Formats: sequence, structure tokens, C-alpha cells
Amino acid sequence: MAPPHPFDPLTLGEIAKAAVIVRKELDGKDPNFRVITLQEPPKQEMISFLEGELRGQSHKRPARAARVQVTIRGNSKPNEMVELTIDLTTGSVIKKEHLVGKHPYIDSAYMQAAEKACRADPRIETEIQNLKLPKGAQVVVEPWAYATDGMNNVSERTTMCWFYLRLLDHADANYYAYPLDLCAEVSEQLQVTKIYHLPSSEDERIREDARLYDHSKAHSPELSEYHPDLRPPPRTTTKPYQVVQPEGPSFQVDGNLLSWEKWTMRVGFNYREGLTLHDIRYDGRSLFYRLSLSEMFVPYGDPRTPYPRKGAFDLGNDGAGINANNLRLGCDCLGTIKYFDGWHNTASGEPLKLPNVVCCHEQDDGILWKHTNHRTQNAVVTRSRILVLQTIITVSNYEYIFAFHFGQDASIHYEVRATGILSTCPINNGDKVGYGTVVAPGVLAPYHQHLFSLRIDPAIDGYANSLQVEESHPMPINDPNVHNPLGVGYTTKSQIITEEGGHDLDFVSNRTFKIINEKQINPITGTPVGFKLLPCYSQMLLAHPQSYHARRSEFGSHAVWVTRYQDDELFPSGRHTMQSLGGEGISSVIEQRKSDPAASSVRNEDIVIWHTFGSTHNPRIEDWPVMPSEKMVVGLKPVNFFTGNPGLDVAVSTQEKNESVLVDDGAGCKAGICPRL
Amino acid sequence: MAPPHPFDPLTLGEIAKAAVIVRKELDGKDPNFRVITLQEPPKQEMISFLEGELRGQSHKRPARAARVQVTIRGNSKPNEMVELTIDLTTGSVIKKEHLVGKHPYIDSAYMQAAEKACRADPRIETEIQNLKLPKGAQVVVEPWAYATDGMNNVSERTTMCWFYLRLLDHADANYYAYPLDLCAEVSEQLQVTKIYHLPSSEDERIREDARLYDHSKAHSPELSEYHPDLRPPPRTTTKPYQVVQPEGPSFQVDGNLLSWEKWTMRVGFNYREGLTLHDIRYDGRSLFYRLSLSEMFVPYGDPRTPYPRKGAFDLGNDGAGINANNLRLGCDCLGTIKYFDGWHNTASGEPLKLPNVVCCHEQDDGILWKHTNHRTQNAVVTRSRILVLQTIITVSNYEYIFAFHFGQDASIHYEVRATGILSTCPINNGDKVGYGTVVAPGVLAPYHQHLFSLRIDPAIDGYANSLQVEESHPMPINDPNVHNPLGVGYTTKSQIITEEGGHDLDFVSNRTFKIINEKQINPITGTPVGFKLLPCYSQMLLAHPQSYHARRSEFGSHAVWVTRYQDDELFPSGRHTMQSLGGEGISSVIEQRKSDPAASSVRNEDIVIWHTFGSTHNPRIEDWPVMPSEKMVVGLKPVNFFTGNPGLDVAVSTQEKNESVLVDDGAGCKAGICPRL
Repeated sequence: MAPPHPFDPLTLGEIAKAAVIVRKELDGKDPNFRVITLQEPPKQEMISFLEGELRGQSHKRPARAARVQVTIRGNSKPNEMVELTIDLTTGSVIKKEHLVGKHPYIDSAYMQAAEKACRADPRIETEIQNLKLPKGAQVVVEPWAYATDGMNNVSERTTMCWFYLRLLDHADANYYAYPLDLCAEVSEQLQVTKIYHLPSSEDERIREDARLYDHSKAHSPELSEYHPDLRPPPRTTTKPYQVVQPEGPSFQVDGNLLSWEKWTMRVGFNYREGLTLHDIRYDGRSLFYRLSLSEMFVPYGDPRTPYPRKGAFDLGNDGAGINANNLRLGCDCLGTIKYFDGWHNTASGEPLKLPNVVCCHEQDDGILWKHTNHRTQNAVVTRSRILVLQTIITVSNYEYIFAFHFGQDASIHYEVRATGILSTCPINNGDKVGYGTVVAPGVLAPYHQHLFSLRIDPAIDGYANSLQVEESHPMPINDPNVHNPLGVGYTTKSQIITEEGGHDLDFVSNRTFKIINEKQINPITGTPVGFKLLPCYSQMLLAHPQSYHARRSEFGSHAVWVTRYQDDELFPSGRHTMQSLGGEGISSVIEQRKSDPAASSVRNEDIVIWHTFGSTHNPRIEDWPVMPSEKMVVGLKPVNFFTGNPGLDVAVSTQEKNESVLVDDGAGCKAGICPRL
Repeated sequence: MAPPHPFDPLTLGEIAKAAVIVRKELDGKDPNFRVITLQEPPKQEMISFLEGELRGQSHKRPARAARVQVTIRGNSKPNEMVELTIDLTTGSVIKKEHLVGKHPYIDSAYMQAAEKACRADPRIETEIQNLKLPKGAQVVVEPWAYATDGMNNVSERTTMCWFYLRLLDHADANYYAYPLDLCAEVSEQLQVTKIYHLPSSEDERIREDARLYDHSKAHSPELSEYHPDLRPPPRTTTKPYQVVQPEGPSFQVDGNLLSWEKWTMRVGFNYREGLTLHDIRYDGRSLFYRLSLSEMFVPYGDPRTPYPRKGAFDLGNDGAGINANNLRLGCDCLGTIKYFDGWHNTASGEPLKLPNVVCCHEQDDGILWKHTNHRTQNAVVTRSRILVLQTIITVSNYEYIFAFHFGQDASIHYEVRATGILSTCPINNGDKVGYGTVVAPGVLAPYHQHLFSLRIDPAIDGYANSLQVEESHPMPINDPNVHNPLGVGYTTKSQIITEEGGHDLDFVSNRTFKIINEKQINPITGTPVGFKLLPCYSQMLLAHPQSYHARRSEFGSHAVWVTRYQDDELFPSGRHTMQSLGGEGISSVIEQRKSDPAASSVRNEDIVIWHTFGSTHNPRIEDWPVMPSEKMVVGLKPVNFFTGNPGLDVAVSTQEKNESVLVDDGAGCKAGICPRL
């Protein structure tokens, strides 16, 4: 069997081997394996390897290495975390770090234990009894990681347990529709340390008495249930729609190497980022070393205790890989589908398969380009085919659908869809607050933001790139040195960024961020080759700069960040986000490196671009009980990179191949066969 | 036969009848019929009609009326324009206007005559001979309407003729790839009144000597030809992709009434706006009275004479209807297609069919909503089907693809794709200018903007609506009256607009424009029902406010305009844009009405929203020789209009219906049949 490619995720054997080595290293201790994942090779080694590979020459293979994260069970220090780097070839431990005061991503076993602890607590039992719940209804305890608010010691974990009700006797009844006036805080040692009654109006004092359950009066299942078992029959008007690819897909897969329409890339996957893409090329030319979603932050805007504790790092705390859905044929994608599996590990270090976590398929995307010569009336039209790599994650109530779209015109689009169920809390009938929407009687969906960081590690015709900021400005009209007599002229002004930092978007000046290679000049335009970012215009973090939300997330303060590439610098809110205190994110790193220009200059260097985007999600009632997908799209397009339209060689669209069908053939309407061109 | 619906375009018989009436009215004159189109009924009459129709009651039919525009041939006043309104029931002339100093949209017969005049001019013949063109190459004369620059008397038409070369002996050779150093101005009387040599560097003086043709040296057809006859064989890697709808489409068409997935609307079409939509409802509830693209302006940013004369009103001057493509099965749309024809008229007043100008079909749009219960691992997923109404226009070199997308979640998206060929001019090899991109040797593609105005005539649960502007702002942290101790709170602030005017976008504050009905309160949220605009963030017009470009277009200075509804107020740059002098657009109208609050207040009134969007198109070489579609999208979404997700009743996605196919069934990958839910 061929050895794995250096970008391939760890194989089953490698996962098992890493566990054995770590067990030996931690001799006598009882490790809970949280992570066994690929430690990607140092970039300098990879560049040599990739260049050799491209030329078909022999090339030194970087060593295979694993990054392993364990917590030590039965230890005096609760939940002590150790991170090790293992050389899988030599079987040696390269690096070992005791991460004091840090916590790994959420441990579902621990969360379940916290839930159990709540249920076992007699005070909570009494509270629930006092609520006088309807008969047959079941209480659901939903544990959340504690978002640091400065109240608790973060060296030990705190779990916030929210209480809901399954009103109907069905395992998939929507319990978020019945938030109870109860909340509990559970300690590392699984003790219930605090019990809260929740606020209703803007008066946020925590009340002594819990509100009785009174939703049922006004709140019919019709308004809040989403599961087909619990709903009236669905609409029957939607006729079947199938995608047929009689000759199969246009892509080829060889292990994790994916080739499609002049594109090549390597598909990666890990517990935290989920889908990652590596060594992305078009027509053999290097474009991106790595593309990944690097972080997500969902801060809630309700200021009342205990809601500031709701602020989720869905990658750092939860993991986009570990929470990836098992995608099902016929449900999540349409057409001819290739699924990729992911691999993770069990608590005892065995390989654990995450099946069908990425689907790969093609879509028709309308017209790629068209021109009708108005003199001859001859039309030339090509249809756009795109390649979609999609992964879907569930993080408690919400789901996110992440998809990279590759185009025949050498464009890449990254689409995020937010769907799932809003996080809810109780509100008295008739009360209103300024930071939430009443989506059902007694149910408040608080305002919140979803902020994403797309990490773009470019390799535009090579690894030394620059970030150019270009704006379009009117030419002056009364400047004797400028010829613009009629006031119609405008030009572009551009600046190349020399220092690491964060930048803002500005559509008013058509501010455009281009990643360019200053050493590669386009032979026709005479300008550096580049790719431009098509940003998703989004409001940045609303929380105050001094708040924990802001200090912990950091990337949410600017839309476009540029940093100098550093191995392992993958996460703009820091490596460990669980109960983090802040100061470990992208702006802190930039600040620390500022004094060393050799390490922080970003012109003609190996740089990384991080795009912050997302939505300020002030819920509409139409988002209830499951929200229709809310799309956000970021694009990357060549700008003076090629010598013309890269999709010019796409064959014209013909009825022969497309086999479209006319609905009717009414008076005078000829079933048009596309004229042969 | 049933009488036409009041929103139906004129029938063949009505067109012919209108021509007869006008001929009689203009007794003895020789009318050139430019327009015979539906004069839509006064809105007050239509509202009564629609309300009666909805209740199934008898209702007074508004009179059928035609708007007819003619120019008088053989007149002493050149190209005199007369506009008449005809009552088709009574056969009477309701209104007759002599439009002094105005010009109708471009007359292709006149343009061809201007082209011929150029070719016949001996001075031009000499100029062309002096260029020493390659043998076999053919000169192409491309006439453009004169964009007012203050140099010419606009009471008569001026045509600017640009010269290009068909280098290859093929009718579809791309002549825009060989712009010649020649330009001519042709008068109303078809005289060549001026001959220009064109600038090259930023030195804009018009040169005495024309540049010799010297492109051929460096400029291979490979770089600039797009027609398959003139190109190497296309890529063969793209496998066929077909859409199969075994039970037919989910929409029904009854004349111009279109019904699909709870949506109903009436399809309209006219020479100027092209596709229009009327009386748009979801589940019987009124949403929009009328949706249309109301204008487009394409100003060029090259300040050098004679380029400020390039500024095209593609609707007002050219017409989106008259220039709509005849869409071909298998080329422009995929799947099961219904085409709508349009009707126009000949110069002598006969009905003229514009076949297949609108295509209507469905598309799969990925996932509509999904939730996986993390406790049961049961996923419920629905796919999104959209209804697409598409029309494509060719305006000389460019094409625009306009499509309305209707969603099962009651959303509407309006997508514009720009494709086609860049407008070009010559540049000396080695020269550069700040307002254009060299896309091929000797070929400059000047910077320009595409500005669109989408006219939204809302009827949100009725005809009295308001425009609400909402922003999201952090709560203060040190205000003793505000409880926000941890600095995470944010709220929305909103304002209802009371006066007509233009507004700007601001993603920084998440500024959101909502069209609401203040009298209809959502029973659950307690707030007015509404629809929000999802704007396309775009740079506004760059030309100086005092320039003719700005004065003539007007709508390009703000992104969101609100006006009080007035019958026939459809065009934000005025009714007549050909060689217009300005002062007839949306801001002038608002200014004029300002003194009369009864006519201009916009709160709880019949209002119209106009969204300006587009692109600052600084060409990339990848846009050459035919540009890959550049997408711009505007959305309209319900916001607290319904009592929940309007797509909640869409049936779950099943493999049974979707019949997707697995690429392979490799190790451990089970061909998943979607679990029955």
C-alpha cells in the first residue's frame, strides 16, 4: 500500500499507533483520549515536497506526525490536559505539554454526567415539582459550556444546564419550544452549585419564585413542532426533481486527491475544523496552500444574568468535525455523490469512524457565459457546472451547512447556511425585551451573532504573496494637473499592506482586497497576478471591547486580517477556547510580534488572510420552529491571474446533452433544438 | 374567449387596434410606431378589481388602454415624438402629448442608417485606408447613442460610431478585440459631423494622425475569439448533467397567471422593462403589487474625449424587452421549461412576436432547513425548490441575465448576472491608464459601472405600508439606567421614514430596511408584519454630482429610495433618457413634491421602494473575451409576517423521490437509503 500523502488525515493504523505510544509515555496514568489527529508537516518541508511532486521528481517525505490531546483521569488535578506530538515513523514523542488551566473541547460524556447530576439533585427535583408541569410532559436538561463572564474560577469546568420540556410524548418533540424557568450551574466535580430562576422582562433580577408552567394554554404544537410525526401532512405540490448524470460525475477521486475540471486539491478532515482543503491548484498553477473554517463564535446579546454565559465557540469548544452529520443519500445532496468519511478516536484511543461527513457532488449553476452577436443573432452560451464539497454540523440546537463551491471560471465560493432551531428562553406572556423576539407564546429567541473566520492560506503562483487594498475613487474635477473636464473619470488607488493587522470593508469606496504575487507579472495587463476576496459584508462583534466575549474571540473586531504564516497558527481565538480568558487570539498574536519586523512583515512573504463574516441574527418568527437556511457567501476570484476567461474552453450548452423538456408546445412555440454552433 | 386580465400585456388584436386608432388620429401623417404597449390601469381601480377578484365577487373591470409612442416621418421637425393613450374599449384617444425635445428609445433602423452613412463617407474611407489594415479583415461600425456631454444640441439625435475589425473571416469573429483608432459622429440627418482619432495614454489630446493597425503582431485569435468555430476544441471533461422531473413541473400556468408552491403572480412583459411581475401573493396574502427592473445605467469612467459620451441607459435607451433573447431549450435553462412570449410592434403598427423571452422553471436549491436531534440522532431535512423566472438581454457587447427566484420559505431573490463582451477602445502597446485594464495587446477595457434600480411596489397585507429602518447597536455599559454589566447586550433601534427620499446602506450597524404594515400586528411577536430588503452592497455612482452622468441618472446617488406611489411613475431616471439633460429622475421628482406633504408623505401610505445596486466594474483580464457571469443578488424576506417558517410544511427529502446515486460503495460505506421519518 502506498504511504499516506503528507496531507492525508491519520490512517486507522496511525491513530492506533499514536495511542499506544502515548499510553506508554503516560505510563501508569489513565488517559482519556480527546484528540488523535494529524500534525500537519512544517510548511517549509511541505513546499519542497509539493514542488518535487509537481515536477515528478523524487522528494523527501515529511515525517508523519500525530497531535494527541488527553486528559488524565483519576488525577488530583481535575481534568488535567496534556498535549503530545508523536513522530509516527520513529515512534518517539517530539513534544509534550502540560496545559495548565486549559480545557479541551466539550466532552460529551462529562456533559451527560452534568445532566444526570442535575436530575439527581433534590433541590432541582423540588423546583420541577413546583412548576406544576402538564402530565406526560418530560423535562429535558440541556448542558452548555460556560462562557467566561468573570464570575467563576475557570481552572475548573462549569456547565450551565438549561431546562426544557418535551410537551408531546415523542422523542423528537421540540423541547426548545418550552423553555422552563430554571437553570443550574454544575461544577467540575458534578455538584449543582447554583440554581437560577430566569428573568422575563428587562427587570433582570433573579427571582425567588419560579414561574409556573403556563404555555400550554396558548401554544399549539402546530406552532412549534417540526418533526413530521407531530405535524399535519406536508404539502404535496412539490413534484420530484432528479439530477441524472448518465456518464457519471466529472470528478475523479484518488484517495484524498480530488480532480475536477482543471482543479486539483487534497481533502482533509479533522475533529475541530471539519473539512479542510490543501494544495489547491487550477490547471496546475498553485492558488491556495490551505483553506479552512478556522473559528466560529456565537455570542448572545441578552445582558441579563445568566445569559452572558451564552457565547459558543462552535469550533474551539464543540468541533466542526466531531459534530459533523452523517450525510444521507437522497437527503443532504442531490445527484451523483461521493462521500468522504472522517476518522476520530474513542476515549480509549481506538480509531472511530465518522461516516459520510463530507459529500462531493456537482451542480448546475445556470449560465457561465453568454454572448449573442447582435448582427448575426448567433448566441454562444455555456452552462456553469460547480463542484460542491459540503459538510453539515449540528451544535445542540443549531445546524450549519458549510460548502466550498469550485467554478469552471477558477472561482471559489464558500457558502455557509445557518439552519436548525433557535436557542430559546422563557418570557412571560405580554412581556417584551429589546434584545429578543417572541417566537411563540412564552418563548423568547434572544438576539445573537454568528461570526465565522475563514482562513485563507494563499499560494498565488508561489508562497510569497502580498495583500493589496484597492479602492475606486472619482478623479478630482478642478485639479489643473488632472484631466477630467466632464467629471466622469474615476481611477483605482491601491496600497500594499506591509504590517500584520485587521482591516475593515468599505463598499462605498469599492474597497477590494487582493492577494497578489508581486514577482509574477501578468504578461498582458502588466500587473501582478492575484486573487480577490469577494467579502460577505457583515456587522462585526457588538459586544463591548472590554467584555469577555470580545477579549476571548478577538477575530470579530475586523473583517480582513493579514498575518505572517506560522506553523500551527490556525485558530484566531487561540488554541484553547473553552472557558478561555482572552488574550490568545489573532490581535494578541499580532501585538506580540509587532516588535519583530522579521517575523511580522507581510509584503512578499508567506501570509495568511482571515476573513470575518457572519450575521447579526435578530430572530424573525419565520425562523421558528426550524429556521429556513440563511445563506452567507464569500468568494475568491482570479484577478489578472490568467490571460483570459479560464472557462472559455467550456463546451457550449446543447439540448443534445442537457435533454431539457418543454412544458407545452403551444401556439407558435417550436420545441427549440439549440442551433448547432 | 375570456377578456384579458387587466395586468395582461396587450393582445395581438389590441396592438393592431391601437395602431388603427392612432393612424386615424394622426390623419395624413406617416407614423413610425415605436411603442404600442399596455397602459396599466390606475392603481385605485386595480385595487378594487383585485379585492373583488380575491373574494370571488363581481368587480368592475378597469378599461383596457394602450400607450402608443410614434415618431412622425417626413416631418419638418426631425423625429418628432408623439405619445398617445388609447382607450381600447371605446376606441378613443384619452391623451395625446407632443414630446418636444425628447427622443424615443434607440431606433435600430436609424442606427443602421448611421452606420451606412459612415461607410459612405469618403473621409472615413480615406482614414480606413490610412490604417493599413491586414488583408481580408473587415471593418465593423458600431453605433452608440450619444450620452449627453453638453457639447451637442440634444434636440436632434447624435450617433457615435466606433470602429472595430473582424480580423478573421467569420461572421462571429470578435470584433471588440480589434478596436480601431477611429470614431465618427453622425447627425440626425445622417451626416458625418465629426471624425475623431482616439487617445492612447493619459494624454487625451485628439491626435491628427491615426495609429496604424499593429495588433496582429502580438495578438493571437486564441486570446480573443470566443466562438467555438474559431477556437481549439473545448474541454471534454464536463460530463452531461440532466434534470428530470418525472411528474412534470410543480407550477401551473393559466394565461399569465402563474401558481407555484403557495405563490401566485401575474407575468407581464413590455418593451422597456422586459419581465414585470404583478399582484404577487403567498398563500393568498398580498405581498407586492408590482416588481420590476426599472432602469440600468452604465457610465464609463474614462474622462478623455469622446469617452464621456459612453453612458448607456440600457432600459430607457435600449429596452430590456426589445433586446430580450429568444431563449433556447437546452441552452439557457435546464429541466422542464415553460416559455413566455412577448409582443411588441413593427414600425407600421403590426403585432410583432418576441418568442421565448421569459423562461420559467424550477431548480433545486440545496437544503431548505434541517435539524438533527442530538439526543435521538434523528435528522429531519427538507430540500429547497425554487421557481426561476429568467430573461436575458443583449445590449450590443454586453448581456444581462435577470432572474426572479421564488422560495418555499416565502423569500424572493432577484439575481442579475452580467456577462458578454467588454466595451473596448484602442491603446498603444506599452501605454497604461488609470481608468482601464489592458485585456489584450492594444485593447483597453475602460472602467465602468453597472447600476440597476429594482422597483419594489409593495402591498404587504394591504396597500398602506411604511418603510422602517432598523439598526443593531451595543447597549451602553456605563449608563446607570441601562442594565448591561458585562457589556454583551445589544438592541435594535428603529425609525419609520416619514418623507420621500434616498437612504444609504450601512452593514456596520446592520442597517435593515423593512417594508411594514403598521396596521397589521403579528399575533405572536406583537410587531407589525413586514418584509425586509436584503440589499446588494454596492458602490454608488462615481461620476461627479454636477456631471451629466449624475444629473441624468439620479437614482445612482442612494441605495434605497422611498417615494409615494403615483400612477406611471416607473422610471427613476425619467420617462425619456435618450440624450436627456437631467432633472427628470427620482430625486428631482421628490424635490418637486416636497412642498406638498399630502402628496409626498410615506408613512402608512401607498409607497414604492427603489433599490440601487450594481457593480463598479474595473475589468479583470479574466473577463476577456467573454466574461464569466458576475452575480449580484437582492433579496426580500418575510420578517414577522407569518406565524412561523412558511416552508415548515415542505415534505422531508427522501431518496425514494430524489433517486441520487452513489459514486462508489467503498469500504464500509453503505449505500444509504434515507431513513423513513
